[in-house]
Amino acid sequence: MIGSIADILADHRSGKKRPADTVARARALIAAHDDSAVFTALVDEAGIAAQLKKLEGADPQQMPLYGVPFAVKDNIDVAGLPTTCACPDYAYPATRDAAAVARLRRAGAILIGKTNLDQFATGLNGTRSPYGTPRNAVRGDLVPGGSSSGSAVAVAAGLVPLALGTDTAGSGRVPAGLNNIVGLKPSLGLVSTRGVVPACRSLDCVSVFALTVEDALLATSVMAGPDADDPYSRALALGALAGFPPSPRIAVPRAQDRLSFGDRQADAAFHRATERMASLGARLVELDMTPFFETARLLYEGPWVAERYAAVGSFLESRPDAFHPVVRSIIEQGRGFSAVDAFRGQYRLAELKAQAHAALAGIDALMVPTMPTVYTVEQMLAEPVRCNSHLGVYTNFVNLLDMCGLAVPAEIRPDGAPAGVTLLAPAGRDAHLASLGAAFHRATGLTLGATGAALPPARATAPAPAPGHIEIALFGAHLSGLPLNGDLLEAGGVFVRASRTSADYRLFLLPEGRVRRPGLLRGTPGSGAAIACEIWALPQEAFGRLVAGIPAPLGIATVLLEDGSQVKGFAMEACAAPLARDITAFGGWREFLADEAARRSADMPAGA
Amino acid sequence: MIGSIADILADHRSGKKRPADTVARARALIAAHDDSAVFTALVDEAGIAAQLKKLEGADPQQMPLYGVPFAVKDNIDVAGLPTTCACPDYAYPATRDAAAVARLRRAGAILIGKTNLDQFATGLNGTRSPYGTPRNAVRGDLVPGGSSSGSAVAVAAGLVPLALGTDTAGSGRVPAGLNNIVGLKPSLGLVSTRGVVPACRSLDCVSVFALTVEDALLATSVMAGPDADDPYSRALALGALAGFPPSPRIAVPRAQDRLSFGDRQADAAFHRATERMASLGARLVELDMTPFFETARLLYEGPWVAERYAAVGSFLESRPDAFHPVVRSIIEQGRGFSAVDAFRGQYRLAELKAQAHAALAGIDALMVPTMPTVYTVEQMLAEPVRCNSHLGVYTNFVNLLDMCGLAVPAEIRPDGAPAGVTLLAPAGRDAHLASLGAAFHRATGLTLGATGAALPPARATAPAPAPGHIEIALFGAHLSGLPLNGDLLEAGGVFVRASRTSADYRLFLLPEGRVRRPGLLRGTPGSGAAIACEIWALPQEAFGRLVAGIPAPLGIATVLLEDGSQVKGFAMEACAAPLARDITAFGGWREFLADEAARRSADMPAGA
Repeated sequence: MIGSIADILADHRSGKKRPADTVARARALIAAHDDSAVFTALVDEAGIAAQLKKLEGADPQQMPLYGVPFAVKDNIDVAGLPTTCACPDYAYPATRDAAAVARLRRAGAILIGKTNLDQFATGLNGTRSPYGTPRNAVRGDLVPGGSSSGSAVAVAAGLVPLALGTDTAGSGRVPAGLNNIVGLKPSLGLVSTRGVVPACRSLDCVSVFALTVEDALLATSVMAGPDADDPYSRALALGALAGFPPSPRIAVPRAQDRLSFGDRQADAAFHRATERMASLGARLVELDMTPFFETARLLYEGPWVAERYAAVGSFLESRPDAFHPVVRSIIEQGRGFSAVDAFRGQYRLAELKAQAHAALAGIDALMVPTMPTVYTVEQMLAEPVRCNSHLGVYTNFVNLLDMCGLAVPAEIRPDGAPAGVTLLAPAGRDAHLASLGAAFHRATGLTLGATGAALPPARATAPAPAPGHIEIALFGAHLSGLPLNGDLLEAGGVFVRASRTSADYRLFLLPEGRVRRPGLLRGTPGSGAAIACEIWALPQEAFGRLVAGIPAPLGIATVLLEDGSQVKGFAMEACAAPLARDITAFGGWREFLADEAARRSADMPAGA
Repeated sequence: MIGSIADILADHRSGKKRPADTVARARALIAAHDDSAVFTALVDEAGIAAQLKKLEGADPQQMPLYGVPFAVKDNIDVAGLPTTCACPDYAYPATRDAAAVARLRRAGAILIGKTNLDQFATGLNGTRSPYGTPRNAVRGDLVPGGSSSGSAVAVAAGLVPLALGTDTAGSGRVPAGLNNIVGLKPSLGLVSTRGVVPACRSLDCVSVFALTVEDALLATSVMAGPDADDPYSRALALGALAGFPPSPRIAVPRAQDRLSFGDRQADAAFHRATERMASLGARLVELDMTPFFETARLLYEGPWVAERYAAVGSFLESRPDAFHPVVRSIIEQGRGFSAVDAFRGQYRLAELKAQAHAALAGIDALMVPTMPTVYTVEQMLAEPVRCNSHLGVYTNFVNLLDMCGLAVPAEIRPDGAPAGVTLLAPAGRDAHLASLGAAFHRATGLTLGATGAALPPARATAPAPAPGHIEIALFGAHLSGLPLNGDLLEAGGVFVRASRTSADYRLFLLPEGRVRRPGLLRGTPGSGAAIACEIWALPQEAFGRLVAGIPAPLGIATVLLEDGSQVKGFAMEACAAPLARDITAFGGWREFLADEAARRSADMPAGA
């Protein structure tokens, strides 16, 4: 296998290997891989040499993806190669790299080739291509998943450590789940889609396949950022990877919403995944999935299919024979919807979105099975529409609801099929999902893709706040899972670590306002106690807005931590202390709340 | 005339008048007004009595619109009255107040009646109603503007001080401009549209007509806020009215984009308006209006008309004869668009929106003529589609581009026609537009509507921080001319005003650090002195960086000023007080430094 991005970068930066060695190794692995359906085109010797030449003289430390080989789904433009969308008659020669490809190359990554897909990215299974069906890297009789079939298999088989997909309805997640790898589906607009052949232009995302969450987030960070050439591009903060937050609230489908179409191994695998998430410290919350599932049906049965017709309808009318028959039958449906249908679908979506986002308030992430069950190629070919639609029940709603998603391996089932989970959250929380997902992945003990390689241990140090972020110590209602924590998440805040103050502080219960809050007050050295806190990192402007909104008597002071470090944090004005109750003895706000709850339940009559 | 909202509230709160008197007066004025086309229905005696009864025992100070009479456009539901949309055959009895109406009534406002409109809110001129054309309050031969014709005329004629309109393509602005009153078109989603018959549901806003900007913003603030029953509702901050900001950047259409269809008086009036805005201190920036005008054409000629068909198409099919012929011909066009057309229109809109918002970066507001020219009723009836479309060239693009707008009178032209300007900005800056517009309106010297009453003088408000800025009170080395002041200027800080704290504070000289600094400490009320400070406004991220860099024992607290307002400001932790010298008696840092300098020179040998 080629190794993870992290391994490759370490080798290049230490001088142990040169990019030319790594690229040659990737090309040899591809040549030796016994499946011609994975790639639609490979970059030739001259193309490789030209890319390597650009790295000459560059500082490996300064290029985030120095010499990292990657592949690109063949509905994304690469200058000098045809873009086929797995439809040879549609193919056109691309003259310019898509924005995402250009950013990866600028970061030092080396393009190796283009990968197979369900034609026009229409499908979630990988069998809808004239170039054949890439063989599932984990269990060869299963579909590889789609539409980004070749990209997922290339990563899972250890041929490249990084491949781009696209994701409109799940194409960046289902194939990750079916190949035991990571699929990061960024927030809409985080990564430019300029140079991508549209499926549903208002919903399309460029997505990332990698062996580890850390690798996927690194590649996403390289591609993220506004692009004036993509009107759907948005200035979203990506955030940074951090440790598993204390007691995150993870929503999971309630019992009747766990769909597996009779697949008991899938049921059991997801149940084990919820237990694993709980064992990491998460509090599970059962969620009514009704608005999510209705949204999924809107995409599958509703007017958005007209977007596919808008993209390739005129080609379809001129060359219907050029299409895969199933793909053609789907795209043709786009002709049948009126503008009234389109607007009515959008009205219903607005209602469902409001319901879904209200249900997710205060939730760190929604965890669902990546796919409800698995299908063999034989099953898929026998019922290509029904089986495909089943694969998307947990993915179709995500882009319509403006959420980001991260597919992470969960286990290899007793029957040898992979089972995966997807973490979902409103747009802008990509890095928070990565922080949750990286810990979950590591806890599974799985090897990577089909490579047999072990997941490297977590990096030891708490990451520094990303540039442009400010750390803040929180003591009360902003703590993870408490009423104001959602404000931090919405503002792009990232949990950094739990800590305690030096023993110089007292904690007070403030007279009640809109929410109950404590206040921290510094005294002379040693005059108080160590008070528990969480350190979060916020983007500068969000930090500014947060501070501007702090109600008296709370404010911001420099807080001394027990390890001697200092951080800005919430503190109260001393003039409020006479009106407040001293709760220093509890050692923290959570401890105070827990004591109070215990007293309340003790007060209740026995048997209540 | 009935007077402004501010006048009415002052009378009710001082006890000079009772709500019953005011309401009786409004009803008498309406009865005496020689135009039956303004109202479609009036609330009967019993309905008025029931509303007045609800005010009994209420505290006038606690109800923001205590006893203020208002009218509502007849496409907005009022419980117990039919909603006609100016189509008698369509009328249905409403059983529940629209959300906006309910919030006004909860604030103490008294509904007087419902007002005429262009049928189904389809028109900008006011002639498309079976109930007749309300007479323009300023110059009777002109169209009143629409579609909110009755609401605008009712306010301009001094019959009610407040009326609700709706605004999809300009219906809340054009009639304001044509009647010399204020029309506030809030940001999409700021005011719930639950209970409003949709025109284009994705674009509809409830809008406000009033005689003054202050009145319009007050009514908007009462209605603003999320509504779980309206999926288009958004949690936007409204903000507060403030003074004219220092040197705002106001964009105006470049010369070739000033459309008047040959109306030289309109050209001259707008030119004078730009000069007036500049005389207030604004810096004018010429703007290429191409993306704005193309967006306006998209709304007028593109697939959004299908939203109108989605709203009332089935009624139209069953009762085509029930429609005004022009309105019918427009809504019928909504049948002809496909879902592909709808999505393509939205793609183009996304591109135009990106261009428009990029062009507006760093601009406080875009100022345009409210309407490019005026038409007589006779002209309008002769060419009902062409003249109507001309009226919307400066309004049609606003909701599509997700902007808020405020129509403000500019002058009465030599020919007696009103000329108005509209201030526009991206959604969320409603109050900033009001701060600009209130000063502009006052500078015109115009009387209110057709009432002849003078505009009352400005309330003494603090000047507004620019959008995205946060105010901070400074007490020491950051004051103008002192060592750290350059940091503020470099960070884009702007001086706002000098002020003093309430008499609750003490000032300390901190032990010396890199620069000498004082620390402010709040005590119990009245325990200290008023301390001199300067208020500056900083961009959010600069504020965040400044706070992050404050050295202990300084931090940020909420500072109470002597005028009762609150602002974030530098404060010290109480634990540092024992080590610091109390310099409260000087009343401020500058005064302390001056005293020190005087002592130093007194100590020096004579003649030095």
